[in-house]
Amino acid sequence: MSITTKLSVSTAATCAALTLAATAPASAEEVQKLKWAVPISFSSSLTALGDTLPWVADQMKAASGGNIQLEVFEPNKMIPALAVFESVATGQIEAGYSWMGYERGQVPASALFGATPFGLEPAQFTAWMYQAGGNELLHELFEPYNVHPVLCGTISPEAAGWFKFPIESVDQLDGLKFRAAGLGGEIMKEVGMSVTVLPGGELYQALETGVLDATEFSLPTVDEQLGFYQVASYYHLPGWHQPSTSQYLYINGDVWNDLNPTTQAVIETTCMAGTVYAMSRAEALQGAVLNSFGDKGVEAKRLPEDVLQAFRDATAVVMERESAADPMFDKIYSSMMAFKAENAQWHALGYLPRDWTWNNDAQ
Amino acid sequence: MSITTKLSVSTAATCAALTLAATAPASAEEVQKLKWAVPISFSSSLTALGDTLPWVADQMKAASGGNIQLEVFEPNKMIPALAVFESVATGQIEAGYSWMGYERGQVPASALFGATPFGLEPAQFTAWMYQAGGNELLHELFEPYNVHPVLCGTISPEAAGWFKFPIESVDQLDGLKFRAAGLGGEIMKEVGMSVTVLPGGELYQALETGVLDATEFSLPTVDEQLGFYQVASYYHLPGWHQPSTSQYLYINGDVWNDLNPTTQAVIETTCMAGTVYAMSRAEALQGAVLNSFGDKGVEAKRLPEDVLQAFRDATAVVMERESAADPMFDKIYSSMMAFKAENAQWHALGYLPRDWTWNNDAQ
Repeated sequence: MSITTKLSVSTAATCAALTLAATAPASAEEVQKLKWAVPISFSSSLTALGDTLPWVADQMKAASGGNIQLEVFEPNKMIPALAVFESVATGQIEAGYSWMGYERGQVPASALFGATPFGLEPAQFTAWMYQAGGNELLHELFEPYNVHPVLCGTISPEAAGWFKFPIESVDQLDGLKFRAAGLGGEIMKEVGMSVTVLPGGELYQALETGVLDATEFSLPTVDEQLGFYQVASYYHLPGWHQPSTSQYLYINGDVWNDLNPTTQAVIETTCMAGTVYAMSRAEALQGAVLNSFGDKGVEAKRLPEDVLQAFRDATAVVMERESAADPMFDKIYSSMMAFKAENAQWHALGYLPRDWTWNNDAQ
Repeated sequence: MSITTKLSVSTAATCAALTLAATAPASAEEVQKLKWAVPISFSSSLTALGDTLPWVADQMKAASGGNIQLEVFEPNKMIPALAVFESVATGQIEAGYSWMGYERGQVPASALFGATPFGLEPAQFTAWMYQAGGNELLHELFEPYNVHPVLCGTISPEAAGWFKFPIESVDQLDGLKFRAAGLGGEIMKEVGMSVTVLPGGELYQALETGVLDATEFSLPTVDEQLGFYQVASYYHLPGWHQPSTSQYLYINGDVWNDLNPTTQAVIETTCMAGTVYAMSRAEALQGAVLNSFGDKGVEAKRLPEDVLQAFRDATAVVMERESAADPMFDKIYSSMMAFKAENAQWHALGYLPRDWTWNNDAQ
């Protein structure tokens, strides 16, 4: 650095100090002391899917000087795993953390915020949420339930699932005994699959005994933990039904409104950090696990083009039906799809093709 | 919710309250009062590229109850735009915000943290940084300079650039008069291009007068602001030389070490939030701008396969040379490429092809 630069630096620094001194400091509002017992819907032992809120709780405690303490409760330890939303809505607990979509029966459009078939990938989803109106629609949707949800974790796509035989044509979908839930399950029914909803803990045995031909559950790190590779040899991707998966810190509306702006800002900021933490963690860990399946006798394959297209066509039918049945579903899905269409040319041209990179680096 | 559930909720809540009461609260350490004058390297008027730190400063003020105040200084208002790193290292200012790579002359490997040709896309980059050792390498790299950098903003790929004629074969690269900087520029020289470094403000005229055949600058939102579409009709993508662009809050090492853990946590958390803010904002805004170029007579096109491959081959040569010259460059580039290779199969199979979605939704 030249002497001239040094001089200008110190002059400028003096000016800056004067500028800052002239600004009366905002009266500091201290972060409130909170101790919330926060139940989660997925076990914290499920890598990338279940371990985000424990990280957020630690980070929030650190960033608040120990004032905000979220005590994480594993599924079913405090309330039933699927009762998070209702418990927060009724005020029985201040806050809970869940995959949005479990409350689809009560709030149909919530499914769109949890995972939308042929919807937005993680970076597109956060783009829509934080920058293109998604977050505002989220609050509009949940305001009548007296719940304030804060996006607090988005992860990589799921896989299409574990199959006992490879899917090579669309004909094989007819009557295929498959486990799926939510909107994805409705779409699979629409293409003629025989869809059942079974809890995660029963899937391994159902596959082993032939009750199921195939099942989806989550992304490679979680699927590996559940051991599906031991009872099914074909792993199809991508999970068109769940191109991103998002979880939220549900906070009771009255509780949220009683928080001062500083406390709200700590929660919102840490949950935003939690979103990129979860995105990063999920993306970082899938490669090694997916690569390991080959040695376990599993073949990882893309679903054939015509199969993906069949699911895409059925998605249009189901989404039209859901939109016709519920104005908020229509409003939110329309916003999301308008964003996706606007982003489409950039999505296709702005990046290297995904397999281009792979072909070159695998050499 | 059933009565049984309600009972179990209130019992559990009581237990939770007892558990929490039994835990002695950590002695709260309050966030320190800081007023830093923070220069930035890009004008805050450059959408998605320059407006992240102003957002981070607002958010950090809110989350600290007004205790942490970063006063943002536009480029050259306080120190020269490219003097951020040196001013922080010497302690003339507490902190600054810059694109990492401007200090490549002093810290060659810094380029890898700013943007790596054929390197990691935004979500892969944050995955490597936060979960696969990148952040630790960053601190190892800058520790000798007494600087603590905090990742605080990653954005979508750049474009390959604005051309006065379309690039249709690799032969056209020979002698092509192009503006580029950093590692990307070295790679372009390696394939025979005539590369000059010109400041952003001179590019429009250089293109208009034929001093340049083509130039890259940033991503569509920023390129649009600089008006290149008025003097060049071919916009090639993707920006293989810069698949993500990352900026950092540089904090003087002594200043950082004097902060208490709460203050450090607020800064780190808010910068993580800033990373997803920038990712989201950049991704959200490129579509509309790219789509608008057609009406302005601009053709947006992918670079031909053989051209991309020529750049890829030259990248290998340049990276080998840089790695041989500097052990930290070698160490960091090796870590990044090992992560990319591990992630490759997931990257290729875990998502729908990018143009698949586009083809379907554009109908």
